[in-house]
Amino acid sequence: MGMRHKTNRHYLGVDFGGTNFKFGVVDSEFNLKESEIMPLGKLKDPKAAVLFIKKLVSDLSKKYRLKSLGFGFPGPVDFENGYIHYLVNLKNWKNIYWKNILEKELKIPVFLDNDVNAAALTEYYLGNGRGCLNMMMVALGTGVGGGLILSGKIYRGKNNVTAEIGHVPLSMKGAKCNCGGIGCLESYIGNKKLLSHANRTLYKHPESVLTAVRKKEGNISLEDITHAARRGDQFAVNFWEDTAEKLGQALVGVVNLLNIEKMVIGGGIAGAGRFLFNPLRKFVRVRAMDIQGKDVKIVKAKFQDKAGIIGAAIIAKYALERRSF
Amino acid sequence: MGMRHKTNRHYLGVDFGGTNFKFGVVDSEFNLKESEIMPLGKLKDPKAAVLFIKKLVSDLSKKYRLKSLGFGFPGPVDFENGYIHYLVNLKNWKNIYWKNILEKELKIPVFLDNDVNAAALTEYYLGNGRGCLNMMMVALGTGVGGGLILSGKIYRGKNNVTAEIGHVPLSMKGAKCNCGGIGCLESYIGNKKLLSHANRTLYKHPESVLTAVRKKEGNISLEDITHAARRGDQFAVNFWEDTAEKLGQALVGVVNLLNIEKMVIGGGIAGAGRFLFNPLRKFVRVRAMDIQGKDVKIVKAKFQDKAGIIGAAIIAKYALERRSF
Repeated sequence: MGMRHKTNRHYLGVDFGGTNFKFGVVDSEFNLKESEIMPLGKLKDPKAAVLFIKKLVSDLSKKYRLKSLGFGFPGPVDFENGYIHYLVNLKNWKNIYWKNILEKELKIPVFLDNDVNAAALTEYYLGNGRGCLNMMMVALGTGVGGGLILSGKIYRGKNNVTAEIGHVPLSMKGAKCNCGGIGCLESYIGNKKLLSHANRTLYKHPESVLTAVRKKEGNISLEDITHAARRGDQFAVNFWEDTAEKLGQALVGVVNLLNIEKMVIGGGIAGAGRFLFNPLRKFVRVRAMDIQGKDVKIVKAKFQDKAGIIGAAIIAKYALERRSF
Repeated sequence: MGMRHKTNRHYLGVDFGGTNFKFGVVDSEFNLKESEIMPLGKLKDPKAAVLFIKKLVSDLSKKYRLKSLGFGFPGPVDFENGYIHYLVNLKNWKNIYWKNILEKELKIPVFLDNDVNAAALTEYYLGNGRGCLNMMMVALGTGVGGGLILSGKIYRGKNNVTAEIGHVPLSMKGAKCNCGGIGCLESYIGNKKLLSHANRTLYKHPESVLTAVRKKEGNISLEDITHAARRGDQFAVNFWEDTAEKLGQALVGVVNLLNIEKMVIGGGIAGAGRFLFNPLRKFVRVRAMDIQGKDVKIVKAKFQDKAGIIGAAIIAKYALERRSF
């Protein structure tokens, strides 16, 4: 078995998150052969990260014939030149020629891209974004990110900082966002904002089952709210409807601008399932322009925490093959 | 001279507006040789339009060697199949195989596209949108339309209904728009909306020079407001600043999503010049994300009422040459 692996081509994908380092090896059909997730720890330092990756590649090379490496990074990175402008939440990662540095050490081709672009590719080629030419991936978490596939290719704009749906303004007045904007989508439906909103409004709803949950546990989670919605709790149902309308408003803008065919929603709050998706689909259908509203399908992401790894490996393979993607 | 024209290749561009029929002949460098504008009149009927165009092409062919015809239409049209879904404000234009019908009559290749796509091409190839790969055209009038050039080509989405910046929502509550949306940009800064807003708020500003203008003329125009701003009238200056912020909010969303390099603003209210453009540039620079805000240049359209004609002729030439655009 080790021998078989050695003869086939493999690709290493790394999802370099703000808190975790995830990596995985895929074969040329993008089957995930193995993967691992670990806290970033000392890898917050770029030099330590290079040493660690060198050791990792050396170890994996005993089992796999690694043809190239792909990285997904959380922040603005220059795909063409393999350069990292900066990473969100990782202050030592600034102005780094990552591709050059790593290729010198490893003697294997290295490619990098934005992490949500990587996840978008996974959904587009292997997940619920298949079968169209124009797709948007929306990743809901503490931050709200996006990836755009337009006319069958990752859309990169001038500097590969695109699809920032978290920073589409929903209102002329509103909270000031870290990005400099006002009333950004992220400042309404980022995980922490949602929870603080839920906690604030729950005080007016002692009848909700979540009031008892909070009394018992000390706080509530987004999963608690979904659980309560499943039990028919009106506060919880309304909470997800309200969230769907905020997300929906940003999607209406995107849909009217881009006549997108598939909107793939992933990340934490996508776990709310029909409580989020039903009102979201209805909102976009009613509010978007006629043709655009009919053309778009809003679907849940197929891949969860592996999307970044696999997408990074897709980038590794396609970039190596000089295939445009 | 007639002879010279006959030997060179020429292209007919038609800007088929909701109220006017505009046409022009360009040579292969897109120099406009002649053009004309006339009220639509009986051409509101598609059959009459076909007959008229047949006569027009026959007349023009005495002077020019017409290689192909291009049309810009105000509404969702299918560029690939030469099909008109429907036209805004022209109720008889529905589900028409325009390309087939006309080619049968004329024996000359016919192409059609959305009118703002046509105008966008003119700015991109010949106007103030030159020198970039990612450009948006914004056409400000009674309606607020757009055209997107992404990665050097018209972006068409699934059904060629894209760049509808007039229907990006600015707020969660707001006026209901004809499109089905709520709080659309167009419902704030469409020409008529702007004027009724100005008239409403002017009552609270007897000190404005516009109060006297209204008393004398019976009403005020957008040009009057620009004129008053030039004279330092604070009400007028504030009016354009407020308009710039509304337009700016929609642009911030587009810029954050698409990392656009040039935003070309044309149409009526672009005539307000620096009173619109200065606060608009400032707003986008402050509110957009850092890289995207730095990457975008907001410029006034170079071509005014000829952009549609010339763009239609560009489409005629490039589509004939099977050049991708």
